[in-house]
Amino acid sequence: MNYKNFFWNIILLSSTLAFSIILPLNFIFHFRHDENLVLILRTIDVIFIADIVFTGWKYYSKTNEFFFEQGTGIRRYLSTWFIIDFISIIPILFIADNSFWGMIRLIKFFKLIQLMKLYKNREIRIAGVLSFLYFGFWFIQISHWLACGWLYFKGYEANLTHSDNYVRALYWTITTITTIGYGDIVPSTTAQMIYVMAVEIIGVGMYGFVIGNVANILSKKDPSKQQYQNNLDNLTSLIRLRKLPVELHQKLRDYYTYIYYQKFGYDEVNFINKLPKSLSSEVSYYIKKDLISKIPIFQEASREFVEGISLHLKPVVVVPNSYVFKEGDVAEEMYFVVSGKLKVLIDSDQKEIAELNDGDFFGEIAIFENIKRTASVKAMTYCDLYILTKQQYSKVTFKYPAIARLIEAEAKIRKDKL
Amino acid sequence: MNYKNFFWNIILLSSTLAFSIILPLNFIFHFRHDENLVLILRTIDVIFIADIVFTGWKYYSKTNEFFFEQGTGIRRYLSTWFIIDFISIIPILFIADNSFWGMIRLIKFFKLIQLMKLYKNREIRIAGVLSFLYFGFWFIQISHWLACGWLYFKGYEANLTHSDNYVRALYWTITTITTIGYGDIVPSTTAQMIYVMAVEIIGVGMYGFVIGNVANILSKKDPSKQQYQNNLDNLTSLIRLRKLPVELHQKLRDYYTYIYYQKFGYDEVNFINKLPKSLSSEVSYYIKKDLISKIPIFQEASREFVEGISLHLKPVVVVPNSYVFKEGDVAEEMYFVVSGKLKVLIDSDQKEIAELNDGDFFGEIAIFENIKRTASVKAMTYCDLYILTKQQYSKVTFKYPAIARLIEAEAKIRKDKL
Amino acid sequence: MNYKNFFWNIILLSSTLAFSIILPLNFIFHFRHDENLVLILRTIDVIFIADIVFTGWKYYSKTNEFFFEQGTGIRRYLSTWFIIDFISIIPILFIADNSFWGMIRLIKFFKLIQLMKLYKNREIRIAGVLSFLYFGFWFIQISHWLACGWLYFKGYEANLTHSDNYVRALYWTITTITTIGYGDIVPSTTAQMIYVMAVEIIGVGMYGFVIGNVANILSKKDPSKQQYQNNLDNLTSLIRLRKLPVELHQKLRDYYTYIYYQKFGYDEVNFINKLPKSLSSEVSYYIKKDLISKIPIFQEASREFVEGISLHLKPVVVVPNSYVFKEGDVAEEMYFVVSGKLKVLIDSDQKEIAELNDGDFFGEIAIFENIKRTASVKAMTYCDLYILTKQQYSKVTFKYPAIARLIEAEAKIRKDKL
Amino acid sequence: MNYKNFFWNIILLSSTLAFSIILPLNFIFHFRHDENLVLILRTIDVIFIADIVFTGWKYYSKTNEFFFEQGTGIRRYLSTWFIIDFISIIPILFIADNSFWGMIRLIKFFKLIQLMKLYKNREIRIAGVLSFLYFGFWFIQISHWLACGWLYFKGYEANLTHSDNYVRALYWTITTITTIGYGDIVPSTTAQMIYVMAVEIIGVGMYGFVIGNVANILSKKDPSKQQYQNNLDNLTSLIRLRKLPVELHQKLRDYYTYIYYQKFGYDEVNFINKLPKSLSSEVSYYIKKDLISKIPIFQEASREFVEGISLHLKPVVVVPNSYVFKEGDVAEEMYFVVSGKLKVLIDSDQKEIAELNDGDFFGEIAIFENIKRTASVKAMTYCDLYILTKQQYSKVTFKYPAIARLIEAEAKIRKDKL
Repeated sequence: MNYKNFFWNIILLSSTLAFSIILPLNFIFHFRHDENLVLILRTIDVIFIADIVFTGWKYYSKTNEFFFEQGTGIRRYLSTWFIIDFISIIPILFIADNSFWGMIRLIKFFKLIQLMKLYKNREIRIAGVLSFLYFGFWFIQISHWLACGWLYFKGYEANLTHSDNYVRALYWTITTITTIGYGDIVPSTTAQMIYVMAVEIIGVGMYGFVIGNVANILSKKDPSKQQYQNNLDNLTSLIRLRKLPVELHQKLRDYYTYIYYQKFGYDEVNFINKLPKSLSSEVSYYIKKDLISKIPIFQEASREFVEGISLHLKPVVVVPNSYVFKEGDVAEEMYFVVSGKLKVLIDSDQKEIAELNDGDFFGEIAIFENIKRTASVKAMTYCDLYILTKQQYSKVTFKYPAIARLIEAEAKIRKDKL
Repeated sequence: MNYKNFFWNIILLSSTLAFSIILPLNFIFHFRHDENLVLILRTIDVIFIADIVFTGWKYYSKTNEFFFEQGTGIRRYLSTWFIIDFISIIPILFIADNSFWGMIRLIKFFKLIQLMKLYKNREIRIAGVLSFLYFGFWFIQISHWLACGWLYFKGYEANLTHSDNYVRALYWTITTITTIGYGDIVPSTTAQMIYVMAVEIIGVGMYGFVIGNVANILSKKDPSKQQYQNNLDNLTSLIRLRKLPVELHQKLRDYYTYIYYQKFGYDEVNFINKLPKSLSSEVSYYIKKDLISKIPIFQEASREFVEGISLHLKPVVVVPNSYVFKEGDVAEEMYFVVSGKLKVLIDSDQKEIAELNDGDFFGEIAIFENIKRTASVKAMTYCDLYILTKQQYSKVTFKYPAIARLIEAEAKIRKDKL
Repeated sequence: MNYKNFFWNIILLSSTLAFSIILPLNFIFHFRHDENLVLILRTIDVIFIADIVFTGWKYYSKTNEFFFEQGTGIRRYLSTWFIIDFISIIPILFIADNSFWGMIRLIKFFKLIQLMKLYKNREIRIAGVLSFLYFGFWFIQISHWLACGWLYFKGYEANLTHSDNYVRALYWTITTITTIGYGDIVPSTTAQMIYVMAVEIIGVGMYGFVIGNVANILSKKDPSKQQYQNNLDNLTSLIRLRKLPVELHQKLRDYYTYIYYQKFGYDEVNFINKLPKSLSSEVSYYIKKDLISKIPIFQEASREFVEGISLHLKPVVVVPNSYVFKEGDVAEEMYFVVSGKLKVLIDSDQKEIAELNDGDFFGEIAIFENIKRTASVKAMTYCDLYILTKQQYSKVTFKYPAIARLIEAEAKIRKDKL
Repeated sequence: MNYKNFFWNIILLSSTLAFSIILPLNFIFHFRHDENLVLILRTIDVIFIADIVFTGWKYYSKTNEFFFEQGTGIRRYLSTWFIIDFISIIPILFIADNSFWGMIRLIKFFKLIQLMKLYKNREIRIAGVLSFLYFGFWFIQISHWLACGWLYFKGYEANLTHSDNYVRALYWTITTITTIGYGDIVPSTTAQMIYVMAVEIIGVGMYGFVIGNVANILSKKDPSKQQYQNNLDNLTSLIRLRKLPVELHQKLRDYYTYIYYQKFGYDEVNFINKLPKSLSSEVSYYIKKDLISKIPIFQEASREFVEGISLHLKPVVVVPNSYVFKEGDVAEEMYFVVSGKLKVLIDSDQKEIAELNDGDFFGEIAIFENIKRTASVKAMTYCDLYILTKQQYSKVTFKYPAIARLIEAEAKIRKDKL
């Protein structure tokens, strides 16, 4: 994020907003000769003129927010946003300050809407907050203009102050567009009735649109939470149909909860698969880097190897007291322990020959020889493992024979131990 | 569910709720010197202090509800919930009972909301009811506070009792946030109008949010019912496009209805496939245990074998008067009868050589030899069968040769009978 | 549909409805001594008693609507619906006609709701209409009871007739639950206000629920139409992205429209695949029967053969002026013309050697020999074809060698002609 | 689009609309003797009679809009739309102008609704606008009729002008169906209350339906935008779970943005795969034509070859500074550069031997020989490439050996260069 640009855009937005708030009030309450107001309007003029200079400079120095869509360069500017920027200062040039044509400055909103959308798409971490502000902004604008319209048609009551008159009109507007309609303030002339109909149709629609969008933002769930909820729903439905023992459905619930809080392997596979090859290996690398670096034999490996291997490691979770594999099973993959504690058992699980912890790997004999498992491995706690199958192992070691030799050496030592 | 914890949480919730109900009324009706009220407030104080002790003990004894996310131990407590628990008793320590700062006790809600969410996720059997209570709780809170706010701004009418005044304010609140807005009670001053606008915008939004969520809970269909409905919809649409005979579409409807009421094999395949290996075989075991135990040759099998086989059995439903297979068909799988009645026919269906009932199995010759079916099997009633293919049979018997010999022996006897 | 049962259910529904309409009016307007009313109530009593006899007989004679879920037999009845049927006639037995306990008869609704749901699921052709009636029924019930409640709390105006009083109350109810709330009729006492709040919360919710469900029924699109709409949407989006020639996108639109109006092969494949084997071949038979019967060589085939072949025929649409295949293409399947007109061309499409019409088949040489296409086939109009691949052809003819010989003979004749 | 037909349909729609607007006003305000009105009605009569002639001619000359569903010919017309067209002129024939039976002319709406739907489906480029007009049309019709109904039941106020009376009634209608219900105009008699209830139930429902549909049209997003949004959402969620370096998530965001603005390869694969063979190759041809024509060796190829190849080219995007492949990788496909700039590097990326630009192709050695990559290719900018795999290359060149020889020749020259 370019903070200089961002700061300027905030100034620009504030002044346009101020102008759009003042403009209709000006028409109704005839502030024409108020000195403060004239000062504000002159300041806005200066900001708008400065914006042309600043935007031109941004295009020239290629720090323009829109560069992605539109390219850069002064020429580019002159043929695109300059037109809007220029139109918005016409009223200043011709000093037609309070007339109807002063409204032309509102064209600046087009640029600001584009900028708001841009920031919403770009600052994806705070996209929700920005959407919220965006709709809040529109809600205030619409309410204000509709309230001013009502003051115009209804006429303001002379015995009330300006602000009381305005609050009354705004109160009527909000009461109407939320479809509450108390009926304490109602139209009396035909013109007023026509205005009210317009507010009822358009205002209610716009209010509903804004509310609907805000509701969408609020109800947008974290996808991992949504998946958790779905898993629990399916579990609930299964429990209703089939009589599973209470311990088993607690076990299942705990498994889903574990997955949800650890988020190990969550959705990564899908996300990574949709990316082009170069990006997928990079993302995969950064996600698994910390985990892979715990595994001793990979610590000396080159980044290229880790990238290569990380693309092929498939995350898997093992629940406590269950077997990763059993003595005699067909051996097709090796495992890396990311976290958790496992036991290696032989002689029908009667003898424990080793304990495995974070950073250990096991089952590697299966990768080199076509034999059955010579021992069982049982998880003591929830274990996050990475699986590497025989086929994928060959693919990676084919490229990086040095690391392959290292693993094979370690494997031989272990096998001899047995 | 830990009932001691649950009971304490209910007490905690009740007292916080009582406090949050009393607090705004206290401001408006100046109950300050009411003895009953003072007693209630003191009781709440005691409960809040007791909660610190109790929660500390829960963390210490590892029976804390939040252990999953946060670990256990007194240290953990002191760095997390203790902060909120402590802030909520500050007003007691400084004896600032009725002042604005008494409100600080409402911070306890943060803890209670977390607890409510936790129970909602944990007690999945009654998740719907808990969600309902959760939203009901919020609806009451919001209405109460908005009504108290209205009493504050509008002022209460001296010639009405306290409760009449409150009901009037609540009536106004409900009428407003449901967007009905009769208009019999309306704001008159500018301050009141501003309050009403706030209620209209926030209250209506919150009411809509609560109603929307309750509607979601109510309309959430049992997935098996939804599937039944979809099946009927698709059938209706097919019938409109193609002229199927009336009996056939009744047959189809009956089939879907049978599936729906029996729920045999409903969605299990999907559910089980998504679980890690160790859990999937266990779930599969419990779902199919009762059914498999009906099949004589499996009754003596070890649990491990039943787990192994249950993962490979695919549920299938056969409609009455239809063939499971016909003489001369290529034989690729064997069948286990879970429920229903079937006939074995030879000589072009002219001769019935056997009747099959719950617990029987058939088609096993196909598993051992590469021959065509030597007889037809026809369903007399709706039949729930499990299919075991040749490939999967080998996988299972490879591990459990004892049971394999048993089935082969039985198969030989049967074959000789023919 | 059993018309006798249906007719009786209508009578039962009408009398329960009548009772539920009269009951609250009775309380409010004190009709106690109205002779007509007494007559109606006595008639309802007779109908309720008759229902016990009739339902018992239905269970006994196994024509009961609920047989699917509950089995049949008098015993079954006595342990299920009889309880409700009996409770609903208790008021008659104890002659407590107008008292509060008369309400107990409303328990009959439980049975009727089950019956309504049953008919909705069973009569799938008119499920939409029945749902509509179902929600209409509830809407009337709720409005009526809420209106009567209002009359009770508000008191009726003595200077108005009964019906005017009722219409006023109903008008208030509808105005409130639709959230319009004119405010011409408002509560004045605290009790009334509490009643109004209940109506606002519950009534508005129920109205929203009914409206939401009716909207769902109305907006439920024919799935084939929905697919058509999706296809057009995707096309529109493609056209915006890429500059396709106007004729091509007309061609695509026409193709989708053709598919939509002809509905040839629409979704059948999916629908049939989800059915168990026995049902799928039967459905497949009836869908393709008329089409297959047009093909001369299949006219003498047995039903079993047609069922077998119909499962393997895959529908395909060819657009005008496009090639089904070209001279020199690898030949892997044969085609059956369901409708449309095609040309067989050789010598680089210069010579037309045959015209194909409904019921013809072509490409059969490819099935018997491993050769390339010896001619091109071009569609003159939109053509609905069925494809039969080499593999599937073998599967079917393996079972039905007679038909296989017929096709091969015809194929030889044609080949010799070339 | 047939502009003559379209123009006539507009005239027809306008006159039917005018008639439906005038009709109820006529009843209420008794315009019977107004000369202008009579003129309008007579003009409508003439248009309706002319429509019979024109539609008959359209059917005869096969330019009828409905030809797709209904076929053509005068006979067809007489048995379908003629019936409605004729009924709509009956009032003219019997000169029953202002009577209740004049309403029969409204039957013409059935035909117009069909025509509107037809245009909506046909003119898919402006389907959104047409839907909008369609619902706007219904909204105006409903409001007008309900307002006239209110005038009828309420009676018009004699001291107001016709138009003021009408505006008042319309104001009441809009206020009611938007559920605002100020309550300044309320029913007083029982008949009025019944009418109001009908408006409340039906009017509110219809308004909600119209608003809901308009909201759907407005919120319908361009599918490519929706995918972009989803991608960003998934990215946001991943970033929250895993600590990716800031540069990487900017890289990912830029990649998604690039894909969104370039729309290279967007969804085409899906769209094309669902079409029948003949259409898919044609669409594929037009989409990739411009791109393929940039590639020199394809410029002389026949259209048939380009169609063949275009079906097999898979679009792929490469991000800047990433490798398409590296020296020593297994070679399985060749690449065509659509846009972008790449470098060919050997000796562990130390020596640059070539630069590749739009229209170049590379990696072709892999297609002819089973060797590893002899050089690395690295993208300098975002690159849009087409991939052609070995298998698909053989399929295409098998049919077009001439082009195959050309590519092989070029490949040999390049290989010799190395």
